[in-house]
Amino acid sequence: MAIELEPIGFVRVEASDVPRSWRRSKLEGALVIDEMYLEGLTNLEQGQQIVVIFNFHRSPRFSTELLRQTPPHSEKESGVFSICSPVRPNPIGMSVLEVLGVEDATVYVRGLDMFDGTPILDIKPYIPQERDRPG
Amino acid sequence: MAIELEPIGFVRVEASDVPRSWRRSKLEGALVIDEMYLEGLTNLEQGQQIVVIFNFHRSPRFSTELLRQTPPHSEKESGVFSICSPVRPNPIGMSVLEVLGVEDATVYVRGLDMFDGTPILDIKPYIPQERDRPG
Repeated sequence: MAIELEPIGFVRVEASDVPRSWRRSKLEGALVIDEMYLEGLTNLEQGQQIVVIFNFHRSPRFSTELLRQTPPHSEKESGVFSICSPVRPNPIGMSVLEVLGVEDATVYVRGLDMFDGTPILDIKPYIPQERDRPG
Repeated sequence: MAIELEPIGFVRVEASDVPRSWRRSKLEGALVIDEMYLEGLTNLEQGQQIVVIFNFHRSPRFSTELLRQTPPHSEKESGVFSICSPVRPNPIGMSVLEVLGVEDATVYVRGLDMFDGTPILDIKPYIPQERDRPG
């Protein structure tokens, strides 16, 4: 039961030294979205935070010996679903980026942790976690 | 350039009345993960928050007239990338759930906004947004 996805666009970034996590990144670049989705970018505005779902297109194929991994700068081996490793059963990444501006179907962003050419699968609004869930 | 993903497991939930958003959901159920990924669940613990990436498997096929949509309980039409609509160019959803417990390869969770049978694509740690990004 395969699920087939098509990129809606690609990351453009000049730096080759890309931070490992958006949490510690100030790297700027662009999400160049396919013109066919231009209308879908309505309401994206400067200063806003967005969730970007993307494909780890340069990751090696996953294999079962990678179900536990020791992240860089850690000494503790963890289950792959407890860490943000780019080598995962489904090579999907998620970053929270800041919108610097939108021009046509290009979204300029800050906080990149993706390589140049990364296929973008989705953009969602980032809504800080506020639950109405007492207990 | 299609990206092919395979479910790592499926959502099991008894209720048929599923809240529209995890933010307002207390619905409990389970993520039944394929046994082959059991080791990857190491470190998942009760009380933890996780990000679950899933497939909107019951959504109709996307078409360009859906690039702007008016969400329920809203009067404002928005670009699809600014809202959480399940009808999107790539039918990928993201929810933050609370782990109630783990038994074998089944993760019991609270906060579900997915239907029974929803294909799960990934589980990631939920790390509250804390940026080292002054300005």
